[in-house]
Amino acid sequence: MLPVLHAIIPAGGAGTRLWPLSRQGHPKFLLDPVGTGKTLLQETFARLRPLSLTITVVTGAAHYDEVCRQLPELSGDGDGDTFPGEIIVEPSPRDSMAAIGIAAYNIQELYGPEAIVGSFAADHLIDNQEAFAAAVQSAVVGAQKGYLTTVGITPTEPSTGFGYIETALEPLPEDPTLFPVERFVEKPDAETAAKYVADSYLWNAGMFVSKASTITQALANQLPVMDETLRRMAANQMQHLIDEGESGRLDRNDWDSLTRIAIDYALAEPLAAEGKVAVVRPVEDLGWSDIGDFEAVARLRHDASTDSQVITVDAPEPLVMQPDGSERLVAVVGIPDAVVVETADAVLVTTRQAAQQVKDVVDQLNASGKQQYL
Amino acid sequence: MLPVLHAIIPAGGAGTRLWPLSRQGHPKFLLDPVGTGKTLLQETFARLRPLSLTITVVTGAAHYDEVCRQLPELSGDGDGDTFPGEIIVEPSPRDSMAAIGIAAYNIQELYGPEAIVGSFAADHLIDNQEAFAAAVQSAVVGAQKGYLTTVGITPTEPSTGFGYIETALEPLPEDPTLFPVERFVEKPDAETAAKYVADSYLWNAGMFVSKASTITQALANQLPVMDETLRRMAANQMQHLIDEGESGRLDRNDWDSLTRIAIDYALAEPLAAEGKVAVVRPVEDLGWSDIGDFEAVARLRHDASTDSQVITVDAPEPLVMQPDGSERLVAVVGIPDAVVVETADAVLVTTRQAAQQVKDVVDQLNASGKQQYL
Repeated sequence: MLPVLHAIIPAGGAGTRLWPLSRQGHPKFLLDPVGTGKTLLQETFARLRPLSLTITVVTGAAHYDEVCRQLPELSGDGDGDTFPGEIIVEPSPRDSMAAIGIAAYNIQELYGPEAIVGSFAADHLIDNQEAFAAAVQSAVVGAQKGYLTTVGITPTEPSTGFGYIETALEPLPEDPTLFPVERFVEKPDAETAAKYVADSYLWNAGMFVSKASTITQALANQLPVMDETLRRMAANQMQHLIDEGESGRLDRNDWDSLTRIAIDYALAEPLAAEGKVAVVRPVEDLGWSDIGDFEAVARLRHDASTDSQVITVDAPEPLVMQPDGSERLVAVVGIPDAVVVETADAVLVTTRQAAQQVKDVVDQLNASGKQQYL
Repeated sequence: MLPVLHAIIPAGGAGTRLWPLSRQGHPKFLLDPVGTGKTLLQETFARLRPLSLTITVVTGAAHYDEVCRQLPELSGDGDGDTFPGEIIVEPSPRDSMAAIGIAAYNIQELYGPEAIVGSFAADHLIDNQEAFAAAVQSAVVGAQKGYLTTVGITPTEPSTGFGYIETALEPLPEDPTLFPVERFVEKPDAETAAKYVADSYLWNAGMFVSKASTITQALANQLPVMDETLRRMAANQMQHLIDEGESGRLDRNDWDSLTRIAIDYALAEPLAAEGKVAVVRPVEDLGWSDIGDFEAVARLRHDASTDSQVITVDAPEPLVMQPDGSERLVAVVGIPDAVVVETADAVLVTTRQAAQQVKDVVDQLNASGKQQYL
């Protein structure tokens, strides 16, 4: 069947748990931390491409050039085929509602209120493309029925690192994998997480599929000023496109006036309370990971064991990452599950077990004014 | 009182437990691992200088230039005062009996058989100079009485890393700190070590003080061929000194024919069996350390806590060592007592607890033919 999806990829966020690989100037989505041969952004693009009519990437000005380089099909920078869509530059970071919002309002301007939009994080990996395609297909069914539809992830463990989704027991009549969402819940403590998993809650991976009008109408209800501003900005972009053959830059004053809020709080939770959110409970495991820390990198990394520049003594299962072409020898002695990440200007030494705390290094760097390492 | 000692410093040995700081081309004695401002060789020289008439350093050809640079008083390379003595270059490594032997035979040639020689490792630290001077003074008393006299170290813990010395219960009449040695014992297991410490055994730090003739006569008895060769070599050196004003190079064929044996096995153990070895039981703690591994470095390092380029999260008491002038940030997360040692071509990651196993890295490098990192 023909694709109907207008995919949106908000490409922001630092990924501070992957410091020092992930940096303000070179965030997680621009990296290939697990060695697939593609960056996470490129993986996301490639995954959505066969399912989409258009793809819109929304990113910061600092990353525009690199995003263009990584996605020549979208930027037109390459010699090969192009793919319909655009790269929108955010004048400043305004959180996910603004980023997804401007793309959705633009799509509504161009393709009408019934157009199906779907937003997907730029820095997650999904191993099972077929299962993902099936889940998106079901999400489109939910979207066409008027639901804000998310794709849930079947938990593989009682993680405290994700928000969870409570669903109704019975699926919607339209699709046996599509369930009404009772509520979204925040990242739980360990005990609560275990209870959620036992009760078949799903992980919230931040994928939202809906009609464009589902977003614009809900935003008009919830945040009318934001709706008005986005509507005006999209109309201006459309006018610019008609006049000049390309979308213009976003107006900085309009953009900066947008409320800083995540789409989860702006739309998903209020609509869930109204019974207007559905979730796909994937039949097959998607092989999803948010590559949230070096533990995930170590688990998924393809070439971890092939590095001849690593010597270990009483230190099984190391993860060693070095800049391309480095000839530096790394020796790990007496630290199982060690993680050693070298960049030109920094070295991180930790373990897979402590990988979540890497975020605190970034906090300390911020607090101590060591901006050059951020 | 006037010094009578002719000090000998055999400057060899790699110090593989301090890899990657300590390398074949730049061994431990040429380094300043704990940040005193002097290398271990320079510390040893400075410690012996006020106690000695002459100082002889015996080192490998590969280290000769650096030894000369570090000891300008001895090499005459500097602008300042000189100190009597010489730097002997070993044509090849032949273990400690050959190194100490050639120096002792030379000293006997120059100063006669009653001259007091004392050999001291080039890569140990002694914090309490006054206590060391007193111990050497007592050792000289023992030497003058005809004993091969060693300076024992009062154990601070039941270490399995050192050989031990069992002494008689009663001191010699000449000096209340001087005890007959019953026997030398090898590095023990933990249980035996605890027993040794309970029984007031001393650590063997490899310091030997005696008349020159005590060494030459014992060697003539134990290893007559070695004695003969060393005697001939020393005579040749003396002749060269008379003819040319400086000692000549050691004859390579003679040198290479010397038995590879440690002075402990060649002389100390056989003489102990004959009741001809004494040991000084220091009154005061010498503050001695062989800087045997990074645990010792961490314990003794002067400036460990002042490094602003280290960020820790849940990782107390790190030891981080970097090349001079490095601006690389090191972050340690979730590893208490971590040891991170960076050089231009290698990084070691371990803990103080695992520091002894660093030696195994060097073994692996040897086994895998990675000579460039040795």
